[in-house]
Amino acid sequence: MSAALEGDLRGIVGEDGVGSVGDVRFHRDATEAQGLSGIPSAVVLPASTAEVAAVVRLCYERDIAIVPRGGGTGFAGGSVPVDGGVVVDLQRMSRVLAFDPPLWRMHVEAGLRTGEVHRLARENGLLFPPDPGAAEQSHIGGNVATNAGGPHAFKYGVTGHWVTGLEAVVPPGEVIAVGGAIRKDVAGYDLKSLLVGSEGTIGIVTSVWLRLTPAPPARAPVVATYRSSADGCQAIEAVLANGIVPAALEFLDAGAVRAARGAYPFELSGDARFMVVAEADGSVSETEAVVGELREVLAERALHVESPVSSQQVAALWRWRDGLSLAVEAVRGGKISEDIVVPLDRLDDAIEATLEIAREHGLEACSWGHAGDGNLHSTFMVDPRDQEEVGRAREAARRLYAVAVGYGGSISGEHGLGWVRHGQLGVQSSPATLAMHHAVKRAIDPKGLMNPGKKL
Amino acid sequence: MSAALEGDLRGIVGEDGVGSVGDVRFHRDATEAQGLSGIPSAVVLPASTAEVAAVVRLCYERDIAIVPRGGGTGFAGGSVPVDGGVVVDLQRMSRVLAFDPPLWRMHVEAGLRTGEVHRLARENGLLFPPDPGAAEQSHIGGNVATNAGGPHAFKYGVTGHWVTGLEAVVPPGEVIAVGGAIRKDVAGYDLKSLLVGSEGTIGIVTSVWLRLTPAPPARAPVVATYRSSADGCQAIEAVLANGIVPAALEFLDAGAVRAARGAYPFELSGDARFMVVAEADGSVSETEAVVGELREVLAERALHVESPVSSQQVAALWRWRDGLSLAVEAVRGGKISEDIVVPLDRLDDAIEATLEIAREHGLEACSWGHAGDGNLHSTFMVDPRDQEEVGRAREAARRLYAVAVGYGGSISGEHGLGWVRHGQLGVQSSPATLAMHHAVKRAIDPKGLMNPGKKL
Repeated sequence: MSAALEGDLRGIVGEDGVGSVGDVRFHRDATEAQGLSGIPSAVVLPASTAEVAAVVRLCYERDIAIVPRGGGTGFAGGSVPVDGGVVVDLQRMSRVLAFDPPLWRMHVEAGLRTGEVHRLARENGLLFPPDPGAAEQSHIGGNVATNAGGPHAFKYGVTGHWVTGLEAVVPPGEVIAVGGAIRKDVAGYDLKSLLVGSEGTIGIVTSVWLRLTPAPPARAPVVATYRSSADGCQAIEAVLANGIVPAALEFLDAGAVRAARGAYPFELSGDARFMVVAEADGSVSETEAVVGELREVLAERALHVESPVSSQQVAALWRWRDGLSLAVEAVRGGKISEDIVVPLDRLDDAIEATLEIAREHGLEACSWGHAGDGNLHSTFMVDPRDQEEVGRAREAARRLYAVAVGYGGSISGEHGLGWVRHGQLGVQSSPATLAMHHAVKRAIDPKGLMNPGKKL
Repeated sequence: MSAALEGDLRGIVGEDGVGSVGDVRFHRDATEAQGLSGIPSAVVLPASTAEVAAVVRLCYERDIAIVPRGGGTGFAGGSVPVDGGVVVDLQRMSRVLAFDPPLWRMHVEAGLRTGEVHRLARENGLLFPPDPGAAEQSHIGGNVATNAGGPHAFKYGVTGHWVTGLEAVVPPGEVIAVGGAIRKDVAGYDLKSLLVGSEGTIGIVTSVWLRLTPAPPARAPVVATYRSSADGCQAIEAVLANGIVPAALEFLDAGAVRAARGAYPFELSGDARFMVVAEADGSVSETEAVVGELREVLAERALHVESPVSSQQVAALWRWRDGLSLAVEAVRGGKISEDIVVPLDRLDDAIEATLEIAREHGLEACSWGHAGDGNLHSTFMVDPRDQEEVGRAREAARRLYAVAVGYGGSISGEHGLGWVRHGQLGVQSSPATLAMHHAVKRAIDPKGLMNPGKKL
């Protein structure tokens, strides 16, 4: 980068606020296993909203791209400076600005780690439900910018549902604020929701007001295994048809079960080719009642139903679930993992379509994810050093998008488009709808400098 | 209107699709008591999305304003053709396009009455939680266009939270669709939320995909009365501080209690100057448990706590609650009823500020509303024939906006800005934030023909 630019940025953020362009931590995110990286023109670590605004203003004046960065745990390359640009890392903005446990609310800076939000809530008898994983590394601002989901989104909704207000810096360097410590607001357009999930392409979220809820006194999982995904998907639909509301309703198909089998903390039948992991929560009696209903409904067609009760067992189960993505990656050393969404009654079709596409492309595949939300992490396993295979997996992924859209679904439920799926929105959106997305982008970022090459 | 315009519109929507410009039903909405009305240039009642698109295209080409209309139950004049324009009434688009009870979802046209959505859900063991009132007259599309709330928004969220997708016609006459029968989607910008609550100023919602939830088997109210709003507001905060999650948490201040006293179905102490109406729901045992907790927490400082149990009593209570707005209106024949939102810990301050502002303007006032959401219907009672008094009430309302914003709140929680609050967003939004609202409006409706004079 030019010494002049660095000097000017230093003038805004101070000596401590400038990072090294050579530091590989700023080159990558969780797409590293796909080989994605980029070298930034500069790295700044602002310590305040005013500094973020000044940095954006400077970049906007000079036509320099801006690449916002949270914890770097994204699966879509959203924070990778693929074509350079100034990386704006929010890690130094991690203050809790206000926390009112009796009123179920919190105002925090965007760089606060999500795990810290969870911990603060938990220590005060409260729950911040979104649980997209990598909580100890991801920032709440990054979760907001991607509208991150997670297993408990089934009952509790995704991150955006828990955001009652936010402050952001938008081009050409203006600070805007919408909502706040309030639970309703229809005064203007819903700019809050427009920024949530915008992946840094129209603004940089600098602080968020979060809504919390009393922590349910009890939670308990139920795991069921099946001979086939058809059996398992029927069981999942039966949960809904019976009016049961689990907190989470997850699945693993045959390939995912195979990849994660070794680490599974309980006994697992060799015939198990599909697994459902559900969780009940609520009062102690409510949780027991829902566990009973889940056991009954999931048992039909099941090979085995397990409902671990000890806290160690439960913790072991969720630790195993959290490690699933890595277990699948370990099969071949790398993976192209997708994030499609389908109507729930097309879940089995989508699982089968993933395998069929894999066969046609000479790849190994599996799916797992948030069954209740119809959100599949359909995954093609690859050797990351084999660029030809990675290319084939990317082609397979594109085929998968068309399948999801054909079922009336979406190409991304919680990971976003970022760099790895940019330009794919047209698969899902009609030309008129796509034009509206572009019109919104242009209206807010006319120079196209906010995280260019991402999302649209 | 010009015969040429009517003829061209007739060519699109047919003979049955053109209404009479003299029909007063198209001149007004629920702001009629404030004297608000307007005469449209034409009235069309399209029967399909394609017809809506063709009407918008025609109007956009000829620079004619478009005024979308749902059930006409809005409190903000959003559907009143104040300055003329073509009223596009959606009442003929009321089909249920898909309904899958076992999968908790429904796809309906915008003109379906909200009461019908409730009924279909209920008959299938499901719940569509948003309950903004006037359900037998309002359209689901109107509820979506205003992001309507209601008492149960406290636990269940406002209308937008239950919309998983929508189809809309946007300028210059394009049909767009976002989401669908899916529960997650982060592929593009959240255009769904942008259209929800946009009050017809950027597009006309033509159909919506709704998410439903299993109907709780039981629900039961708890009513508590207090000597003062300070006591009552402390009780409301205590509900949250004790980790209780009621389905609804409503309040009436002294003036509202006075106005509605006559119709109250139970005994009411003469000292009652504040009332809390809470509701528990869930399984039978859960409901009983929450009722017990509510009774205990609300009893501290209360004059009296009542928990009606028979279904007749419960129905009578909610009928009375539904009639509250009319009871307040009956005091003087008219009212300027506001819809401010404040952080919950400023509820009592906002109630007191309403009375203080009323005193300063020589008016009578009261407040009631959705306490848990900090959403007050602060109301100035007026004689609608006394234009000077109505003018004073409007001035008082504007003072109230500044108070709400001073507390970190919003000028509207569920009614929207419409015509009666248009141009007031600047009280709440900084110039930069306001500019972003306008940029979005211009990007989608560059000619400013969608419901002009409303919202911004």
